[in-house]
Formats: sequence, structure tokens, C-alpha cells
Amino acid sequence: MDALLLVAHGSRRQQSNNEVTELADKLRDSCHDDYKIVHAGFLELATPSIPEGIENCIDDGATRITILPYFLNSGRHVVEDVPDFVVAAKNRHPDIDITIAPHLGASPLMVELLVESAKSVSSVQVPT
Amino acid sequence: MDALLLVAHGSRRQQSNNEVTELADKLRDSCHDDYKIVHAGFLELATPSIPEGIENCIDDGATRITILPYFLNSGRHVVEDVPDFVVAAKNRHPDIDITIAPHLGASPLMVELLVESAKSVSSVQVPT
Repeated sequence: MDALLLVAHGSRRQQSNNEVTELADKLRDSCHDDYKIVHAGFLELATPSIPEGIENCIDDGATRITILPYFLNSGRHVVEDVPDFVVAAKNRHPDIDITIAPHLGASPLMVELLVESAKSVSSVQVPT
Repeated sequence: MDALLLVAHGSRRQQSNNEVTELADKLRDSCHDDYKIVHAGFLELATPSIPEGIENCIDDGATRITILPYFLNSGRHVVEDVPDFVVAAKNRHPDIDITIAPHLGASPLMVELLVESAKSVSSVQVPT
């Protein structure tokens, strides 16, 4: 059974963490045909951690897990920290297939998304 | 003349800043019909700053500037810092129309983009 784990940095600001959890909920609703299981995991400052998120997927019956790094830049977190957690999880669970998708900022759809955001500018107020 | 200013946090890691500049270049290529002018600006740790980015747009002939916040969460930077810079710029340039688009994380296209990223997982290696 296929699972998605949305991995974010985590914030001291609970509202930011809630936004990630809500995004995972939206993902669960929108790609149920491909991924029966969707969870969130945080690198630091929030729970569940990435290892806990991976365990949550496995507890739900996942046999394949795709890690989705919700990061804009290919910094140390994307290049080292997230892969380190994945290697450790693969060592704990050699029977589970765990892969890492490109980080968000690398998506070829990013330009399209930004253009759409620019078009919806009228909905945002600028304080005067 | 319409301008887009892609606003990012800025990083001590030059590669991350370069990724933002390259994204602005892609935006310039892809939405030339709607925005003749596209620049990048950084909140901190990199140049050009947001005020410098706004001046760059005006120097190129912008009469309307749309600020595109390249941020995932609606934290203090999105809610306070970027609007503060915009208010200051409007005070300096009352003849220029400056608006702020929704930040990236608020885009209704985000779920679609993440699903597409998950599909391209085969291109990423996980260290073993």
C-alpha cells in the first residue's frame, strides 16, 4: 500500500505547523486513488517527527512510502538531513520501499503556480 | 507598465539565493505578455533587498508592481515584514501602484504541484 509523507521544517509558531497538517489533509483527499495513506512529519520544532511520520505510515499498512520535502531551496535540510532520516528508516525497515521526491522548489510547475498567485492579487489587502 | 517582484527570505547559502534569482528569470520568460518587468528581492541575508528590488522595477519603468511572496507559511515575514516594506515604498512612491499577492503556501495549486512532485520520484536517488 502506497503512502505519502509530507515533510516540512517545523516552526515554533503552531499556526505554521497547522498549515502543513491541513495541507496533508488536502493531499489525502485529492490523491486517494494513488495514495491510501498520507501523513505529515517535521524535521524539528514540531511533532510528529520524520521518524514518527514514517512509523505512522507503516502502522497504517504502508509498504511503499514517498517522502515529499516541503522545502523551497535545496539546502542542507533537503540534501542531507531528510535523506539521513530516510536511510535510518530503511535500516529499521528493510522491507519497506522508501523514496524521496524532488523538493517543492524544484517543481517545474512552480512558475505556473507563481503566475496564478500573481493573478489573484486583488484578494489581498496592503495596509496603508 | 506592470512588474513582478519575487520576494524571498534570503539565505547565507548563495546557492539558495541563486535558485530564487533563476526562478525570477524563468518567470520573466514565461509571463512576458503580462509583466514586462520581473525582479527578485530578499528580506534579509542577500541582495537586492526588497526596497532595492522595488527601485529596480521603478527604474525599469514600472507603474504597477505585484509583490509575490515566495514563502510557504503565513508567518511574521508574510504578515508583517513584507507589508511593512511595501507601505514604506508606497510612501516614497505614491504614484506607483504596489500590491501583494498571496504567499506561495496559500496557492490552491499547491496540492496539484505536490502530487506532480510525488509522481517524479523516480528521478531522485536515496543514499543507501
